[in-house]
Amino acid sequence: MSILIKNGHVIYGENLEIVKADVLIEGNRIAKVAGGIKEAADTVIDARGRVISPGFINLHTHSPMGLFRGLADDLPLMDWLEKYIWPREAKLTRELTKAGAYLGVLEMIRTGTTTFLDMYFHMDAVAEVVLEAGLRGYLSYGMIDLGDPDRTEKELEGAVRTMEFIDGLRSDRVHFVFGPHAPYTCSIALLEKVRELADEHNRLITIHVSETQSEIGRILERYGKSPVELLDDIGFLGRDVIMAHGVWLDSRDIHILARHGVTVAHNPASNMKLASGVMPLEKLLKAGVNVALGTDGSASNNNLDMLEEMKLAALLHKVYNFDPTVADAGTVFRMATLNGARALRLNAGVVKEGALADLVIIDFNSPHLRPMNNIVSHIVYSANGSDVETTIVDGKILMLDREVLTLDEERILEKAEKAIEKLA
Amino acid sequence: MSILIKNGHVIYGENLEIVKADVLIEGNRIAKVAGGIKEAADTVIDARGRVISPGFINLHTHSPMGLFRGLADDLPLMDWLEKYIWPREAKLTRELTKAGAYLGVLEMIRTGTTTFLDMYFHMDAVAEVVLEAGLRGYLSYGMIDLGDPDRTEKELEGAVRTMEFIDGLRSDRVHFVFGPHAPYTCSIALLEKVRELADEHNRLITIHVSETQSEIGRILERYGKSPVELLDDIGFLGRDVIMAHGVWLDSRDIHILARHGVTVAHNPASNMKLASGVMPLEKLLKAGVNVALGTDGSASNNNLDMLEEMKLAALLHKVYNFDPTVADAGTVFRMATLNGARALRLNAGVVKEGALADLVIIDFNSPHLRPMNNIVSHIVYSANGSDVETTIVDGKILMLDREVLTLDEERILEKAEKAIEKLA
Repeated sequence: MSILIKNGHVIYGENLEIVKADVLIEGNRIAKVAGGIKEAADTVIDARGRVISPGFINLHTHSPMGLFRGLADDLPLMDWLEKYIWPREAKLTRELTKAGAYLGVLEMIRTGTTTFLDMYFHMDAVAEVVLEAGLRGYLSYGMIDLGDPDRTEKELEGAVRTMEFIDGLRSDRVHFVFGPHAPYTCSIALLEKVRELADEHNRLITIHVSETQSEIGRILERYGKSPVELLDDIGFLGRDVIMAHGVWLDSRDIHILARHGVTVAHNPASNMKLASGVMPLEKLLKAGVNVALGTDGSASNNNLDMLEEMKLAALLHKVYNFDPTVADAGTVFRMATLNGARALRLNAGVVKEGALADLVIIDFNSPHLRPMNNIVSHIVYSANGSDVETTIVDGKILMLDREVLTLDEERILEKAEKAIEKLA
Repeated sequence: MSILIKNGHVIYGENLEIVKADVLIEGNRIAKVAGGIKEAADTVIDARGRVISPGFINLHTHSPMGLFRGLADDLPLMDWLEKYIWPREAKLTRELTKAGAYLGVLEMIRTGTTTFLDMYFHMDAVAEVVLEAGLRGYLSYGMIDLGDPDRTEKELEGAVRTMEFIDGLRSDRVHFVFGPHAPYTCSIALLEKVRELADEHNRLITIHVSETQSEIGRILERYGKSPVELLDDIGFLGRDVIMAHGVWLDSRDIHILARHGVTVAHNPASNMKLASGVMPLEKLLKAGVNVALGTDGSASNNNLDMLEEMKLAALLHKVYNFDPTVADAGTVFRMATLNGARALRLNAGVVKEGALADLVIIDFNSPHLRPMNNIVSHIVYSANGSDVETTIVDGKILMLDREVLTLDEERILEKAEKAIEKLA
């Protein structure tokens, strides 16, 4: 299988250089980026007036939570969880979770996300959905033992079972990741065992850390240290750890994260909407920490639009630092592409020869993207997910000219409506 | 002329009640909102799976500045102005301004804005564009005299000339507004004369006030008081004043604004992007000040998308106040509709019998707007301008099923590209 995308404006390489060129995809790789490519291809796409961009990498979400979109806004975190989210999650069956995952992956394909890191329940079901949809998914079963040794065992079994299920799918696109929920919901025993298993099976780990001020207080009270110090002390941290949120970090925490090469998945919309706080982006970047971008779940965002998320990230840190030069367009664009790929050890998030063919074509024939003064700026500050016209993952076209090819859109929307009725 | 919109979910009345109903438009008014309307109509629109919403009112922008979109991001305000914006603005002819205005109104129609309050130069040209496009425009010529009495006279003459030109168009949709730029760029003499003229001709006034901390310092140094106190002392304030920004306001300022019934046009994206600061929304609302929403110009946003702006407003004030309950979806939705209409003394911004037929149809057949758990929340937190399918102003359809009927889109995009080349 080969695809030739002709006459686009290509956002090329790590430096985001804009070149007018064709892009040739052979198999699942980008084979060539050059002007006037003559090779024949199975599919030819005309990208005149369009931009060929790396696909976006959503480094923290809970894909099935789209079902809960808009059910509980403008509420304190604990009301949100206790009155609205947890009672519904308790009723989630495998089938209902799958209905939510379909809705999530459909939205991601539509808005140009090519890879995502997920944490939720029934992840075997989510894996099936990702396999069918054609996205690249890194899937973690969210483990919570609340210090109960029986639950520790059960959660670890659940994780290993999910790993085996996903491995059994034998897909290069669908990967298992260990997902202990957070230091305040997981015992030390669970966290230590996860570290062991991740080493043994050579898997990544993702975990929520330092999201809210109250979490910091709880961990300090229980352990006499910060969540990051705690994780450091038990030998949990490493280059394979992707930590979601990291809102409340002091200089010591940041130093620890940098030393271990931990990636932080930043979720500005969720942190703003739940009033969790503002992640110290500038300090993290200065310390050399790899920071990537995520949307969090659609119950606290309320969408999975990585283009919108880039704008939020850039704007939030400018006003927070009283400095319009921070979180510039290029920095934020890399957070949404390259930095996520780096965390996942993936040769993607960039358009260049040899990289995985995970890319999107963005339609610039719209008033809000003209004049074409600055393509990367327009994507970060003015575009949104609806401007994505074509989504390609692993050399396969998932959406062409805004038509999703791998999923039955109408059926997914219908099933999502029915699912939430059952959860009421 | 009559239009019947059938089977939509209507956001009805000031309380934003969701009703499944038809909407009948007769002439330029909403005649009836009810189930199963039987009256015949010249045009019938099927709105199944769609939402009928009041059109959005952008209460502060500089429509031609779309030309400068992305030309100068991530810069300190003075660099932005002195190195990039002012040199180009100095070269702006009537024709080039018009090219920018076309781009702006096209974007507004596409993203569901039905009314806007503008400030710029060559406003006679902008008025012609608005007349042709079919939008409702409140247009002010931005006056700056920098304390030079010769310029005071010239600027006032320019404003009066613009007023007479716009009055000469004899349109119910296009209105002149007095637009002294700001207390730091206008002399007291100019401001006092504007107040007189506004009273004499019964026109609204719009002005930038308290946008940046440095402005506060300059006014304090020059006059020994805050910009709001200064305007109060010279008798400038009143119900007819729409003040853009209001980022740096103390309790005394807020009390003054409430007492005079001044409207504040809030521009969260611009205030964040230029790192101006955070407007004290909660304090203004508690004091009873009418707060509406604007996008500011596309050089500091970088688009005119009021749906995106609503999300930014809601999220910014939640994290700024560390309280997820502030700036709830309904409050922010009213800021983008009703409150703007109130400031403009316009019977619009609401779908109900007798109101002006300024409304939009939003397509909810997209994964990011499902399940339809909460329509107003979805519009504020998950939708963006691209979800707007049909835009109706003054009982005329400007865009139907995403096709703009009043303007030549391709030509406008081309002209915008050529205009910016001439300004380089």
